[in-house]
Amino acid sequence: MQIIPFPDRAEWPRLLARPTQSSAQIEPVVAPILAQVRERGDVALIELAARFDQIDLSATGLAVSADELDAAEAQLSDDLKAAIRQAYQNIRTFHEAQKQPIEKIETMPGVTCWRRSVGIDKVGIYIPGGTAPLFSTVLMLGVPAQLAGCREVVLCSPSNHPAIYFAAKLVGVTKVFRLGGAQAIAAMAYGTESVPQVYKIFGPGNQFVTAAKMLVAKEGTAIDMPAGPSEVAIYADDTAVPAFVAADLLSQAEHGADSQVLLVSTSKKLLSAVNLVLDTQLSRLPRRDLAAKAIGNSKAILVDTSADAVELLNQYAAEHLILSVAEAETVAEQITNAGSIFLGNYTPESAGDYASGTNHTLPTNGFARAYSGVSLDSFVKKITVQSITPQGLQGLGPVVEAMAEAESLDAHKRAVSIRLASLM
Amino acid sequence: MQIIPFPDRAEWPRLLARPTQSSAQIEPVVAPILAQVRERGDVALIELAARFDQIDLSATGLAVSADELDAAEAQLSDDLKAAIRQAYQNIRTFHEAQKQPIEKIETMPGVTCWRRSVGIDKVGIYIPGGTAPLFSTVLMLGVPAQLAGCREVVLCSPSNHPAIYFAAKLVGVTKVFRLGGAQAIAAMAYGTESVPQVYKIFGPGNQFVTAAKMLVAKEGTAIDMPAGPSEVAIYADDTAVPAFVAADLLSQAEHGADSQVLLVSTSKKLLSAVNLVLDTQLSRLPRRDLAAKAIGNSKAILVDTSADAVELLNQYAAEHLILSVAEAETVAEQITNAGSIFLGNYTPESAGDYASGTNHTLPTNGFARAYSGVSLDSFVKKITVQSITPQGLQGLGPVVEAMAEAESLDAHKRAVSIRLASLM
Repeated sequence: MQIIPFPDRAEWPRLLARPTQSSAQIEPVVAPILAQVRERGDVALIELAARFDQIDLSATGLAVSADELDAAEAQLSDDLKAAIRQAYQNIRTFHEAQKQPIEKIETMPGVTCWRRSVGIDKVGIYIPGGTAPLFSTVLMLGVPAQLAGCREVVLCSPSNHPAIYFAAKLVGVTKVFRLGGAQAIAAMAYGTESVPQVYKIFGPGNQFVTAAKMLVAKEGTAIDMPAGPSEVAIYADDTAVPAFVAADLLSQAEHGADSQVLLVSTSKKLLSAVNLVLDTQLSRLPRRDLAAKAIGNSKAILVDTSADAVELLNQYAAEHLILSVAEAETVAEQITNAGSIFLGNYTPESAGDYASGTNHTLPTNGFARAYSGVSLDSFVKKITVQSITPQGLQGLGPVVEAMAEAESLDAHKRAVSIRLASLM
Repeated sequence: MQIIPFPDRAEWPRLLARPTQSSAQIEPVVAPILAQVRERGDVALIELAARFDQIDLSATGLAVSADELDAAEAQLSDDLKAAIRQAYQNIRTFHEAQKQPIEKIETMPGVTCWRRSVGIDKVGIYIPGGTAPLFSTVLMLGVPAQLAGCREVVLCSPSNHPAIYFAAKLVGVTKVFRLGGAQAIAAMAYGTESVPQVYKIFGPGNQFVTAAKMLVAKEGTAIDMPAGPSEVAIYADDTAVPAFVAADLLSQAEHGADSQVLLVSTSKKLLSAVNLVLDTQLSRLPRRDLAAKAIGNSKAILVDTSADAVELLNQYAAEHLILSVAEAETVAEQITNAGSIFLGNYTPESAGDYASGTNHTLPTNGFARAYSGVSLDSFVKKITVQSITPQGLQGLGPVVEAMAEAESLDAHKRAVSIRLASLM
């Protein structure tokens, strides 16, 4: 890992810049796929699966049957099932605590306002195929959907891994389809003969899936958040264990060559020590080629003070931020931009990736400056409700009349005046 | 208003459809404006203001000075200032109650997770020009920004109405610029020599502003929500006062010919009575031409039962929903899709538009199926934090190891294993 000693503040933006991703080339490829699914529904899905995934959906059907979902359980080891159940329970405990009771607020005498949380009626979850069967993401998106009370939870995945099906059953997914790619996003956004239309789509995916999500978002289907390659920043001092830091850097790097890894420290000694163990650990990894590429693109930045480190990290706005420093919780309170923060030597990112209870769907690419990770809130709408008594309107009405008049909105004023007149 | 008696369910989608809005024609006009501002900053803003708004910004400067903001107060009546202050207080009271204390959750022994709310560091508010100076929107967006602790709150408006400046001062806006249209959105999204770049942009606007917001959203600047014409649905029974219902319908209709107005009832008598007073009230409105057009496009739907009405309203997903019915609060509990709900005869929509305390920035165009209105949440990010003790990792670690192994992510597993080994 390249060590960059005391870079000038003017250089920070360049050092912290993510590789730019342009969707300009992808959109023209994805848009016709969306159009085909919108216009021809299931027929288009069958054609596209044959063309892109070499799958014959006309033989199996689009939907995964209840029997297939049930059969998954028998194909998993007891250890893995127990682990998934424990992760499910922890995620559930953390997200359950995000429920907010209704609180009625009397803003003025007789003027009562409150918010009701209502689950989004129909949501979609996309789980990519590929080498890693992301059943953990089924839990991360399915648990809050279940807690929110979403009536229809549709899952699309080109993977038929039994752990995905087992997790889907656990979280109460209502329908599972053998669909992948941009066409799966289109199916959920528009609905087809088989696939129900949903109002919000969640989940990771490749650049085609991401482009499809951005396009349907522009048309009005909500999405979880804009996506980019996964990333971790680690702030470590001499209280950190170099071998742990190296292991955390590698756990991010193995996601792919475009993964972003950033190490910040006030200790040159620590940075050198991490570099040393990094090479050893890297050589033992099955995915070492991938990880080595990501590490090659990554930076270890030496800074003067803890204040500098915090400022730099806030500028970077990491998806995952590990604070392996003394007084980690105090430092965490100074962090204003991050997706999720991991404190101390015994809180690896992978704990949060799988099972501690926090959500692993987090803002990448600096989006943590404005976006939160997925939570129970992502699966509900908060509807405001208000109730005004006649006496309440006598107090509030003149305020509304004066403001509506000043905004030249007469009918707004009259809607109040006609009621006040009736009370005289 | 056209009364549609007992339409078949199959007809509902057609009856409830909003006029489609295509941004296909607008985007090619807006994209070059964005590019100009991104590339040439203030110079482009000055040129565009001269061309589109006939304003010479080189004479006045882009920024509104503190003196100008201070001077606004003297130009407003005491009544209007008192009204704005009362609205400010009510909005503040309601949004203050949305603050959530930090709650630490121990999901397993030694595994502690929580969420920290942090204000988005820099936000932008757009307030359109035009006939109605929307100072109420300054309050609706500025109050939660203030409560969230956003450090920089930038306001762009082509209007120099003193009530806008007065409200801006009240909510603690940090910088005000004389900028309108798509170029104002570009200035806040990209930043220029004068205008700070912000991370999230809020506020209403015409089709050019809306298209600009959608384009910068695709590039990564967060926005409040997709926008469409304002709309109200009213569900009224024989306990409703026809003159109040008519006044509420008109207060929505005066927003413009494209405003959506929908009246639903189980009582033919009520519908006829509303139609009767509607004509009389319409003839007395200054904006009657505009409102008459909107009313002409609107529908009064007669349904069989309250259950039908609720189902139809949930399908419509109105921005504003007035329930002028017996047991309005019970009916409200059955509503799953709406932006904001107004209960009973003395709760007109205009109360919520201005001063009751709820936010008036709400999802239109059916977006209430997946989106909430603006709230304090819209101005904060929720960062998750976790802290695991060595003993906690001994309990949680094996769960993570099993799952990471099943997802073929070895380095994720090793980040845990190396720590567990150190504890043996």
